[in-house]
Amino acid sequence: MAPPQEEKSKTTEEESVTIPITSAADNRRISTIAIIIAMQAEANPLVDRFQLKEDLDCVFAKGVPWVRYHGTYRDLNINIICPGKDAVLGVDSVGTVPASLVTYASIQALQPDLIINAGTAGGFQAKGANVGDIFLASHIAFHDRRIPIPVFDLYGVGFRQAISTPNLLKTLNVKIGKLSTGDSLDITPQDEASIIANDATIKDMEGAAVAYVADLLKVPAIFVKAVTDIVDGDKPTTEEFIENLAAVTAALGGAVTEVVDFISGKHLSEL
Amino acid sequence: MAPPQEEKSKTTEEESVTIPITSAADNRRISTIAIIIAMQAEANPLVDRFQLKEDLDCVFAKGVPWVRYHGTYRDLNINIICPGKDAVLGVDSVGTVPASLVTYASIQALQPDLIINAGTAGGFQAKGANVGDIFLASHIAFHDRRIPIPVFDLYGVGFRQAISTPNLLKTLNVKIGKLSTGDSLDITPQDEASIIANDATIKDMEGAAVAYVADLLKVPAIFVKAVTDIVDGDKPTTEEFIENLAAVTAALGGAVTEVVDFISGKHLSEL
Repeated sequence: MAPPQEEKSKTTEEESVTIPITSAADNRRISTIAIIIAMQAEANPLVDRFQLKEDLDCVFAKGVPWVRYHGTYRDLNINIICPGKDAVLGVDSVGTVPASLVTYASIQALQPDLIINAGTAGGFQAKGANVGDIFLASHIAFHDRRIPIPVFDLYGVGFRQAISTPNLLKTLNVKIGKLSTGDSLDITPQDEASIIANDATIKDMEGAAVAYVADLLKVPAIFVKAVTDIVDGDKPTTEEFIENLAAVTAALGGAVTEVVDFISGKHLSEL
Repeated sequence: MAPPQEEKSKTTEEESVTIPITSAADNRRISTIAIIIAMQAEANPLVDRFQLKEDLDCVFAKGVPWVRYHGTYRDLNINIICPGKDAVLGVDSVGTVPASLVTYASIQALQPDLIINAGTAGGFQAKGANVGDIFLASHIAFHDRRIPIPVFDLYGVGFRQAISTPNLLKTLNVKIGKLSTGDSLDITPQDEASIIANDATIKDMEGAAVAYVADLLKVPAIFVKAVTDIVDGDKPTTEEFIENLAAVTAALGGAVTEVVDFISGKHLSEL
């Protein structure tokens, strides 16, 4: 039930619960990418940019609202997968449950070499985040899974490490920081304490779920997040989020395009 | 992206966001059951009672820790599915993300006629719950997905109705109440306010995720929960949970056996 984790990092005791998301075959050339995006508005600029088409004869289970856009861009087989609109309420299926389901189903159906989770995020100005910043997440954890029983507490936090991408970081004009995930757009004092404990600079609603599933199925994953709102600022999160969504989504599209351009023709180990 | 919901209940405006988990074919005789249980300790009494065997040539994806026990009991093909032990930390994979994944994968692999989500729960004495009580959930919702944007707020709560089981309720010595789900064992003031808004009598860490996936794939689901601890009582939740887990798990096993005995030979519409 608890097989040894061969890829486990050899680190200090404190870091020994950090799980790197790696693959057994990380020297292969990247051919197929699955880009997981929670909101349709976040996906649209990239669907246009890569000239992708919606998969009408869907690879997923009958009845699910999940949407796949796909096509060839440079030498890459690109898929953008959105969890789609809630069947009754009509809003994007945001949050960790749909994100984990589409990540799982996408890996099963598409066998991608790399997962990119792209989306908007809240940022902490105390940690150097500004509206419009693009971040690559170095680590990902949950901030709303408090289970105060020894070991279950660490499981709840689910601290994971994204794959190392030093060359990508050198090339792109992005920041690097830790990402903390929870199912709420707002933040409680307990969430804030957990986010501080996670040493997070940015906060989203899907990343740690994507990281969990990618780790479960041993698919390398990177996390590209664009800051729509400052969590520790003066403006209410919801207003700031809605106000900045369009402009920041355009910036996110540009950044993900740069990431994909960089990835094209490379092996995982060259990132 | 937002297909009409044919099974949507015709009710008042207030209730119009309550989504009944129903099936297009709810007059079929129940043949295959998938029982989703988060913790191994909760599953063990039932595995013994039904004399199930572990599926060593697993129907699930390679590498996942999910465990399936299966066998024939009376006229039923019974499957108990646990999300298994975390590969690194060795604890049960509790919470909404693993619960949603195993529910999805179980439906895909086994095509069950009925899902039973069984497990322990916290209870609210102000709503009539006592330690050791067995509840069937009438409704299920989330209490830790706060998205204060119109319509997204309803999506976050995800209020759903379990299938109606009036005959089962008459036969069994159980209580009925609303279930609220969150990824934490403890409770914050914001969680408490949401649980009150959900009118919940019991609180767990998986139910609403199982309900979401069952609804997505149109498989009927029922929720059998045994109370291990009183959330609005004097004792700390974690201590009370650990203290009562063994005894309450045995009671849960008895109750699920009674449910399965009742189901045997019946059609969905006879529950």
